[in-house]
Amino acid sequence: MPRSPGPRGEYAKTAKRRQEIVAAAFDVFARHGYPNSTMSQIAKRAGMTMPGVTHHFPTKSALVEAVLRERDLDSQSHLEGRRGLSVLQGLMENADRDEHEDGLTQLFTILAAEGTGKDHPAHAYLRHRYELILSAVQRAFEEAQADGDLVSGVVPAEAAQVYAALSDGLQLQHLYGVGQVSQTALMRRFLDGMLVTPVEGVTGS
Amino acid sequence: MPRSPGPRGEYAKTAKRRQEIVAAAFDVFARHGYPNSTMSQIAKRAGMTMPGVTHHFPTKSALVEAVLRERDLDSQSHLEGRRGLSVLQGLMENADRDEHEDGLTQLFTILAAEGTGKDHPAHAYLRHRYELILSAVQRAFEEAQADGDLVSGVVPAEAAQVYAALSDGLQLQHLYGVGQVSQTALMRRFLDGMLVTPVEGVTGS
Repeated sequence: MPRSPGPRGEYAKTAKRRQEIVAAAFDVFARHGYPNSTMSQIAKRAGMTMPGVTHHFPTKSALVEAVLRERDLDSQSHLEGRRGLSVLQGLMENADRDEHEDGLTQLFTILAAEGTGKDHPAHAYLRHRYELILSAVQRAFEEAQADGDLVSGVVPAEAAQVYAALSDGLQLQHLYGVGQVSQTALMRRFLDGMLVTPVEGVTGS
Repeated sequence: MPRSPGPRGEYAKTAKRRQEIVAAAFDVFARHGYPNSTMSQIAKRAGMTMPGVTHHFPTKSALVEAVLRERDLDSQSHLEGRRGLSVLQGLMENADRDEHEDGLTQLFTILAAEGTGKDHPAHAYLRHRYELILSAVQRAFEEAQADGDLVSGVVPAEAAQVYAALSDGLQLQHLYGVGQVSQTALMRRFLDGMLVTPVEGVTGS
């Protein structure tokens, strides 16, 4: 069945064009790494001129932000309709997926580090993103606690911070190829340590 | 008492000059943040010409590496002559100190992220640095275990990876100003969770 056209032809065309650029950027970033990727490679990959790309995304930062927004929507949709323990399991599944996408992980790692500067173009977006992640994970731990799934003594706000920190820090180790134990195994062990009934099949080796 | 001159005048002069540049770079990075700092600001701060600086340090990356090497020597000297639990306590003290030096923390965070690229000039240095940290922390946990200071079930290699990951990830949260609990409080709580006798005065609030 053909897709129905959008309400306005120009709007739909712009949205499609932006989507093509984001897909091309994702590809180029993942292949060459973020630092080595250039806007002209991305334009070439998208089959467009440089001004055609910069009209939609003036900088590489703006593009990487768009790539991450799209990825975040994917991750969120994987968690939709879940609560408590099931959200935590979904987070582990997202982590499993990310462990095999080094280009994207590197992309996010570098943007997150560079974005710590208050005048970085993606600073506000990234700060807000961290707050959303922390509050979503905290809520999942609170729900799991209310459902009787957590061992006693777990503080949801702290567990959320530790979860996010572990995730970021283990990704960095993974990118450097250091450490004997995989990031997903350690994340699962961390989660299992807080659960009354450890998640099935996640002993982590 | 005056310092004795080095074995060769030229060598000593070069070493002194390099040290002055590193000190100037530390200053400029800490004040303006790594991304905004320029080689010409650093040259000005050191009272030198640009070619004078680039003769010793051709790039900003080379300079930041030198700054970090110096900082690592400081951190290591704080741990000298210790073993086991005492090393772990020393690590927490280093973390306390770092929490108040955002410029330096940001510097390291960005370099560590950018250095994940295998062709980055500091990649080999940073990878080696991670390996040294992981093995030193692992050894400290092994010694603490042999001394009977750890609760049962702790795996030193894993504890080391988790320690390093938490440290990196919580620094990132700190730089973004997100999360309700301080990084040092969470690090201490993590450590206390593994100790037979929690460290004095570190309940973490």
